[in-house]
Amino acid sequence: MTTTVESIDVRTGEATALDVIEASPGAVRSACERAAQAAPELARRDLRWRAGLLGAMASALEEDGDAIVQLADRETALGLPRLAGELRRTVYQLRLFARVVEEGSFLGATIDHAGDTPMGPLPDVRRMVVPLGPVAVFGASNFPLAFSVPGGDTASAIAAGCPVVIKAHPAHPATSEAAFAALARAASSHGAPNGTVALVHGFAAGIALVEDPDVAAVGFTGSGGAGRALFDRASARPDPIPFYGELGAANALVVTPLAAGSRGEEIGAGAAQSLTLGVGQFCTQPGLLFVPEGAAGDALVASLVAAVSAVPEAHMLTTSIAAAYRSGVQTDAAVDGVRTLLIAGPAGGTEVTASLFETTASSFAADAAAVLRRECFGPVSVVVRYGTTDDLDGALGVLDPALTFTIHAEPGDPDAQRLIEHASRAAGRVVMNGYPTGVGVNWAMQHGGPWPATTSSLHTSVGAGSIARWLRPVAYQGVPDELLPAALREGNPLGIPRRVDGRLVVDLLDG
Amino acid sequence: MTTTVESIDVRTGEATALDVIEASPGAVRSACERAAQAAPELARRDLRWRAGLLGAMASALEEDGDAIVQLADRETALGLPRLAGELRRTVYQLRLFARVVEEGSFLGATIDHAGDTPMGPLPDVRRMVVPLGPVAVFGASNFPLAFSVPGGDTASAIAAGCPVVIKAHPAHPATSEAAFAALARAASSHGAPNGTVALVHGFAAGIALVEDPDVAAVGFTGSGGAGRALFDRASARPDPIPFYGELGAANALVVTPLAAGSRGEEIGAGAAQSLTLGVGQFCTQPGLLFVPEGAAGDALVASLVAAVSAVPEAHMLTTSIAAAYRSGVQTDAAVDGVRTLLIAGPAGGTEVTASLFETTASSFAADAAAVLRRECFGPVSVVVRYGTTDDLDGALGVLDPALTFTIHAEPGDPDAQRLIEHASRAAGRVVMNGYPTGVGVNWAMQHGGPWPATTSSLHTSVGAGSIARWLRPVAYQGVPDELLPAALREGNPLGIPRRVDGRLVVDLLDG
Repeated sequence: MTTTVESIDVRTGEATALDVIEASPGAVRSACERAAQAAPELARRDLRWRAGLLGAMASALEEDGDAIVQLADRETALGLPRLAGELRRTVYQLRLFARVVEEGSFLGATIDHAGDTPMGPLPDVRRMVVPLGPVAVFGASNFPLAFSVPGGDTASAIAAGCPVVIKAHPAHPATSEAAFAALARAASSHGAPNGTVALVHGFAAGIALVEDPDVAAVGFTGSGGAGRALFDRASARPDPIPFYGELGAANALVVTPLAAGSRGEEIGAGAAQSLTLGVGQFCTQPGLLFVPEGAAGDALVASLVAAVSAVPEAHMLTTSIAAAYRSGVQTDAAVDGVRTLLIAGPAGGTEVTASLFETTASSFAADAAAVLRRECFGPVSVVVRYGTTDDLDGALGVLDPALTFTIHAEPGDPDAQRLIEHASRAAGRVVMNGYPTGVGVNWAMQHGGPWPATTSSLHTSVGAGSIARWLRPVAYQGVPDELLPAALREGNPLGIPRRVDGRLVVDLLDG
Repeated sequence: MTTTVESIDVRTGEATALDVIEASPGAVRSACERAAQAAPELARRDLRWRAGLLGAMASALEEDGDAIVQLADRETALGLPRLAGELRRTVYQLRLFARVVEEGSFLGATIDHAGDTPMGPLPDVRRMVVPLGPVAVFGASNFPLAFSVPGGDTASAIAAGCPVVIKAHPAHPATSEAAFAALARAASSHGAPNGTVALVHGFAAGIALVEDPDVAAVGFTGSGGAGRALFDRASARPDPIPFYGELGAANALVVTPLAAGSRGEEIGAGAAQSLTLGVGQFCTQPGLLFVPEGAAGDALVASLVAAVSAVPEAHMLTTSIAAAYRSGVQTDAAVDGVRTLLIAGPAGGTEVTASLFETTASSFAADAAAVLRRECFGPVSVVVRYGTTDDLDGALGVLDPALTFTIHAEPGDPDAQRLIEHASRAAGRVVMNGYPTGVGVNWAMQHGGPWPATTSSLHTSVGAGSIARWLRPVAYQGVPDELLPAALREGNPLGIPRRVDGRLVVDLLDG
């Protein structure tokens, strides 16, 4: 039995049968076997070639960009401007990773020459990272490009020298096929081995991927439930593999009394824009707003409500996502001590309005079923009004860790230092006087956080650091120069930064 | 009900009741709570203070060194010279980590100033790592110091700024108590917060530690069975935590025909020493020796047998370890196609002799129950004789990945490049013309490897890199300079290497 994959126009509900079927277990196995065959060959290619492959993928996506963006808009209703921006981001990400690969620091090349130590003489030991092998990538619903087929997991795995087998998200199969075609064309024209990139569709194919003996690691962006289920399968394998799941979060935004006093209305308007951006379908969406009691806080909330009320009804990604949102906000509204400021209707299609609730810090902390502190995916935030510092800290104390933690404070603010320390324990990214949506692709970005935000708080799924997820170190002891990988040869033929006898050495010509 | 902890003199079997009991669930909980209370305070202390704590621990161990080594010799029978060396290594490790902490690269400080990019303007983002929180450390049987209470997991966790709760190995509780007393004294005299180090005894205490809500990560060195069971518990927690298990390995040593021809006898003698070192109780012990057929290989094996025969009977660590070894070699001997060269008796106490077996590459590859390719902990190796290159590669192809892979080859050896590439896929450390036992503590060491050698191939449990296991990145976006951690302030007050706008910057005064 084969199941044809359908592409849905979110705005009309119209379904189009694509010329692809859900992958059978045998098809998944074949894709993984081809990836495993490609892996050693891909690992052997030099850094410049690998950077060239990333560049070729970027160019191919640009060439096909208009068509891809059109398809994505049809399947996600996120709008052409946002999707064109997402394409630019995705292309830039590939090009940044090409630079990271050529720069070479990511290899962690480390050389300890033979010598005497207080523990006795030690041999020559040299260490660098090597690719893990085939990586399974799960596309996300909410970023059909940047966190899907051509997105960060794929780009970072290719940058690491790993083949990828991608599982398309069912919300945008046509976009996935089109983006994959660009990647595959680039791989082929750049001379990449067969099996470097593959795409599969279907729920069962995703499970088969995580359990495939040739898959060495998994990158996932999605819900906590699905992420946990797949993480459990990855961990229960006869050979457990790393599962990097970015599972979303209920992101806190705290406004200090000083900040509310000096720019409460501006913060209300800024928060409104951030919480409704992309119909609230961001893992960094600020779902919890901590606002002081009193007049300044009231003005902030008034500005927030006004700005959110003005946001037009908009389509969510799928009918099931919209249904979960509609039902989630009804549950929020029913919690003891919650006042509904705005609420989406309980019934309807994918088109929704935003919701806002208000409660007190004590009611929030007393919410035994933890309804309010859980992420409700969509354009909804809970405003938590606090009186004293203890009040605020008590409410923050019941929160799960998250991807981000945002603080609005003023210069010399007595609350700032304490909140920053709390935030660095409670999140992967601390945002000050800004908004958490919008995750830049650069060297310093951290998109991750302690459980339940991710399954692996040591890593990031965005930025240069994301490449490290697909690499493991190997030490070479006593290996003659001519047999060493180029990155570790005495003369540093690649010209990369290295640590030699404990000291970082950066080529002065470049550095 | 309380169970008193007993210390066994391995050589005589004499048991001495210690003045400590196995930790109750409540005692484990208390230790973890105290560690959790210490964690933020420990994270707040500066790098110089942290380096000082490591130095104080090193000095305290040195002060108590003679007594600790005496206790360890009584409990392990490893001998005073080896244990004095292990103490030196342990002390050196703490001091090296102090240097690594002061050098500061391990923080991964990365700064991207605000600016325009092809994806639009990006805010100021700065990233560094922060401590994970309380770490549970499991002492190993075979290294009562270097991989136990004051060993690599403890030293690296303290270097990362994490409190540790250590589970003593039951084979050396008195040594554990004495080493712990030195660590605790150093922590106290250096002004470390209460709860920075703790020690617990007992099997149930170990399980309770892995499941304790305040424990953020686990370091373990031990058997595959115990490691897998604890890994499964760590992964199944409501909040899964990283479990770094170094589970041992069946380490291959391959001698090429050229190497056998030019220095077969020397290699035979060297392998004999390596495989019997510490009564074979090393996770890097070379349990599989691949030797060419023919006269040169025969001479190598003759030299190996002669050297191993000359090794005197010696005590293993515990009666159960000795019993497992005696039984394991009987199982090896019974495999089809195996010729026994030397074998320990099936019955007896902790004193054992070494064992050696010989088989063909085809018999080895045909061993369906995989008996020969599994680690048998103790002084035993299987010599696999191969004819052709295909023969050798076929036998190597059935092996599980391991901690190490050793190659003996000659200059211009036609087999060298192929074997090194294979080795880098099959192990965490590739040793050329040397022996895998002896794991140096330095910047470049990698002690790890793909499953089943470890539970996390991305990491090392030895060397400067081991500190990374206990750290997670945090990005600070738009945070004013005076509120940033010192490592990320614009003026670089710590003088550490950093990446600024994509470029590594090493202070030229130091670098």
